[in-house]
Amino acid sequence: MCQLLGLSANTASDIRFSLSGLVQRGGATDKHEDGFGIAFYEGHGCRLFVDPEPSINSHVAEFLQTYPIRSKTIISHIRKANRGKVCLENTHPFVRECWGRQWVFAHNGQLKGIKKLPLKRYHPVGTTDSEYAFCWLMDQILKKYPKPPTSTPKENQKFWNFVHYLCLTIAELGTFNILFSDSSKLYTFCSTKLSCLTRRAPFGIAKLADAEMEIDLTQTNNKDDIITVIATEPLTKNEPWIRMNRNEMRVYELGKCVFQRTWE
Amino acid sequence: MCQLLGLSANTASDIRFSLSGLVQRGGATDKHEDGFGIAFYEGHGCRLFVDPEPSINSHVAEFLQTYPIRSKTIISHIRKANRGKVCLENTHPFVRECWGRQWVFAHNGQLKGIKKLPLKRYHPVGTTDSEYAFCWLMDQILKKYPKPPTSTPKENQKFWNFVHYLCLTIAELGTFNILFSDSSKLYTFCSTKLSCLTRRAPFGIAKLADAEMEIDLTQTNNKDDIITVIATEPLTKNEPWIRMNRNEMRVYELGKCVFQRTWE
Repeated sequence: MCQLLGLSANTASDIRFSLSGLVQRGGATDKHEDGFGIAFYEGHGCRLFVDPEPSINSHVAEFLQTYPIRSKTIISHIRKANRGKVCLENTHPFVRECWGRQWVFAHNGQLKGIKKLPLKRYHPVGTTDSEYAFCWLMDQILKKYPKPPTSTPKENQKFWNFVHYLCLTIAELGTFNILFSDSSKLYTFCSTKLSCLTRRAPFGIAKLADAEMEIDLTQTNNKDDIITVIATEPLTKNEPWIRMNRNEMRVYELGKCVFQRTWE
Repeated sequence: MCQLLGLSANTASDIRFSLSGLVQRGGATDKHEDGFGIAFYEGHGCRLFVDPEPSINSHVAEFLQTYPIRSKTIISHIRKANRGKVCLENTHPFVRECWGRQWVFAHNGQLKGIKKLPLKRYHPVGTTDSEYAFCWLMDQILKKYPKPPTSTPKENQKFWNFVHYLCLTIAELGTFNILFSDSSKLYTFCSTKLSCLTRRAPFGIAKLADAEMEIDLTQTNNKDDIITVIATEPLTKNEPWIRMNRNEMRVYELGKCVFQRTWE
């Protein structure tokens, strides 16, 4: 099993505090030692850092903890390999271009028989179930939407319902907890385990669950900031994390939940 | 104008010496201060580091000079913006997936009217001529080769001739010096300015042209190593760089030139 970390915010935010908790799980407090990756959006551009080293030893992870890259949308992943050997091309997150946007995807879980689904336009570079599922997902999106949906509330709802339907289809093959994004929206789908937390004023103190570390959020945030953090397991021990339901999809934009739907 | 740096080798090689010369041109010895990027392949996987900061100030460039990522195929670029504002999505190299391989592309030059060419499957995320040209190139490749060519000498020649023809077509719109790769091959096309150097035993001392720095290649290489370096301008002052001809394409694999053709 792997661990996911995502961020959606209305202001470019520093992920280092949450990341400090996550990387502990990459070999110290937990056994996700088969790779580490993180994608930050900056406008429509995307920086992707991937390292097949355990995150606790990763020079890249160490660099990122000291270098303050700020972003409104972030997706990170630490890997415990199930399918596919430990190597760079099997390290999440994965990136593909669709409609002139960079789509980033990270997955926690295992899928049985996913590679029997036919692929058309997108093909995996590595050998993971996860990248294959991502390629299938993007294929279906591009097939139904050769152009992006018009950005009206009604068309957005229709598109999100369609993405939810695709996630439910894949989730029938196993465990499919995912984070993905087209830069402006953060899509989350919970198959078994995913928690979310929205921070907004009044801010308080946040205490990491995986390390002796706390941060005074009043010092790091302005009163209008809205920051949502999504993780496989709650990263702090004193904040009101919400555990998502089985088959629940949420879409976040600028820190706010703009779509929430559960399939019973 | 921008500056390109590429490497093809039969052994995973350290680019830091050449990179030290290149980043000097990103704000110190030359005015390419609108971004810096580098892509390293590791097997089929690819690490991409991009930073819209001048390379001379870039934390990412600084990190890379101390962290020894070794690779058989590397593409790097420092940017002097002509078209497209300075931002992450306009920073070379660009990456797209085709046939389950990561293709990386970097360009030096300006193209007039490139955006009038129709695009089908690949679309730019940013606003540069360069990324547009890359998308058009990949579109044409995918159209003619929905699957990769079989890897026979005859089919390879046919494919490289086709890529050369595509490069010549784009070069009619302006200046098109490029490096691109599918991970195993390094493609180089010279429209006005590109130099190459192949290092092999007996190795000697290499002296940087842009900084007071030299390296004893006998200490860093084994006798069977073959390393080709490609750059806009020769990076060292005491080695036999070859200036490529106008409209010349070369393809390198494991440091060796496997295709060379000039269109008079």
